[in-house]
Amino acid sequence: MLTEAINLYRARVDQQLESYIDALGETEPKLKAAMKHGALIGGKRIRPFLVYAVGELLSVPQAKLDAAAAAIECIHAYSLIHDDLPAMDDDELRRGQPTVHIAFDEATAILAGDALQTLAFEIISKADSPLSAKQQIAMINALAKASGYSGMCGGQSIDLQATNQQIDYPTLVKLHQLKTGALIRCSVELALIAADADEMTRQHLLTYAESVGLAFQVQDDVLDIIASTEELGKPQGSDSDANKSTYPKLLGLSGAQDTAKALIEQALSALTKLPYNSQLIADFARYIITRRV
Amino acid sequence: MLTEAINLYRARVDQQLESYIDALGETEPKLKAAMKHGALIGGKRIRPFLVYAVGELLSVPQAKLDAAAAAIECIHAYSLIHDDLPAMDDDELRRGQPTVHIAFDEATAILAGDALQTLAFEIISKADSPLSAKQQIAMINALAKASGYSGMCGGQSIDLQATNQQIDYPTLVKLHQLKTGALIRCSVELALIAADADEMTRQHLLTYAESVGLAFQVQDDVLDIIASTEELGKPQGSDSDANKSTYPKLLGLSGAQDTAKALIEQALSALTKLPYNSQLIADFARYIITRRV
Repeated sequence: MLTEAINLYRARVDQQLESYIDALGETEPKLKAAMKHGALIGGKRIRPFLVYAVGELLSVPQAKLDAAAAAIECIHAYSLIHDDLPAMDDDELRRGQPTVHIAFDEATAILAGDALQTLAFEIISKADSPLSAKQQIAMINALAKASGYSGMCGGQSIDLQATNQQIDYPTLVKLHQLKTGALIRCSVELALIAADADEMTRQHLLTYAESVGLAFQVQDDVLDIIASTEELGKPQGSDSDANKSTYPKLLGLSGAQDTAKALIEQALSALTKLPYNSQLIADFARYIITRRV
Repeated sequence: MLTEAINLYRARVDQQLESYIDALGETEPKLKAAMKHGALIGGKRIRPFLVYAVGELLSVPQAKLDAAAAAIECIHAYSLIHDDLPAMDDDELRRGQPTVHIAFDEATAILAGDALQTLAFEIISKADSPLSAKQQIAMINALAKASGYSGMCGGQSIDLQATNQQIDYPTLVKLHQLKTGALIRCSVELALIAADADEMTRQHLLTYAESVGLAFQVQDDVLDIIASTEELGKPQGSDSDANKSTYPKLLGLSGAQDTAKALIEQALSALTKLPYNSQLIADFARYIITRRV
């Protein structure tokens, strides 16, 4: 059921993304192709999954979730394009395919990332949205906070400075809360906004989101050690090669695996406090720490 | 009176920008310093000027214009930071000061630009805004359209591909309508949204904005030929050195100057059709083509 739902939501958001980008017109075909390459290069689409799955849990029609799901994936895609640039992580492969600056060029990759960020805000602010203006504004504000200085960009900046430096455990947690956690939390928050959820529901589902977000990163670090290059689509051990601080480095491999499990227990415990059938997102939480890619 | 108004509005938007950036907290001091460097490096602030001046013409209180003025300058500032990068125009000086990637480093410049773009949307979407949610959403949508693929980013992409190539006059106009014109037009549009302006007012003031936006770029090209390095804060003739197509190249110097004058006549003519005392923005239009910097 989880795999089916993941595939369904992924197909839905991919189709949404493609149609939003196609609708931009033919002003600049090269830039558009680069945006498509970056946004549709594949991936698990875990952020859109959370938007749709939490939204449906709260009985929100999918049509009220489409913009949020596509927008958060635009933000994620832009961040990957920029993170892969030579001045940042300098990665030539992403999900087994050439990164945007390799498939096109560096200037186009910078612009494609810029324009995908803008597109996220354009998508949510559309005049013909089925959301109320108040919901649209709340979504935009949540997405901006999660992705800017106080969220993803801030986390990436800490990460860059932490490379080749030993950082302590609280700093590593902070880094990942910002760099990846903020956007995963925001996925759930966007669904909560679409549902006009009450404070109690917000609180428990945001606890779920924060725990899952951190566990996701811990598992990424674990996978970097245990998985093969073929499964990851990037060179195995590339994070440790770059002298990045990781959970396994600070906690040991089994310490990191235990941390991921404890985080998922927290996420599942938060779900039990809610009067909903949350099996799908509970399964998703378990999947986060058992996945091999 | 114009100089006084320019200085007043510049001081106001600078103070707004500084306080928005300061309010972001201390998550990442280096990134914050880079954002400040990019946003507060100086400049004429012509976009915030248009927001305030057109807003006041339509009797909008300044408090309803502050977010729009700061946000559009964040977008402009982010675009300059990214345009200056080595992979783009590779400029080391901007307004006589080191560009962000020189004062900091390339990765930080990319992130500072990213985070300034995000900040623009965060500022307009604030929950305690004096604007209605409908006005906020309309502003965000207008700003996203003007700055993304269909506007500024698209224009910059066309510009990069036009370097070292001869382009024709319609393509040059299109390029500048997108690269600089869209954001200048948007400055006026944001004020129109804050004023809930009627369709007739919208039409004439947007004609004004489009003409001024294009004239601004024509004059920039003219200045690149006639002004000294000291006045421009960048090497004189740097655009022609880069083998960029410019108005003087396609029309001759006096042809370009005539075009700028004709555009400003169009702008002034649009203003005469409105029942407002538009002397300030009329003077501003004249200033656009008489300025030396």
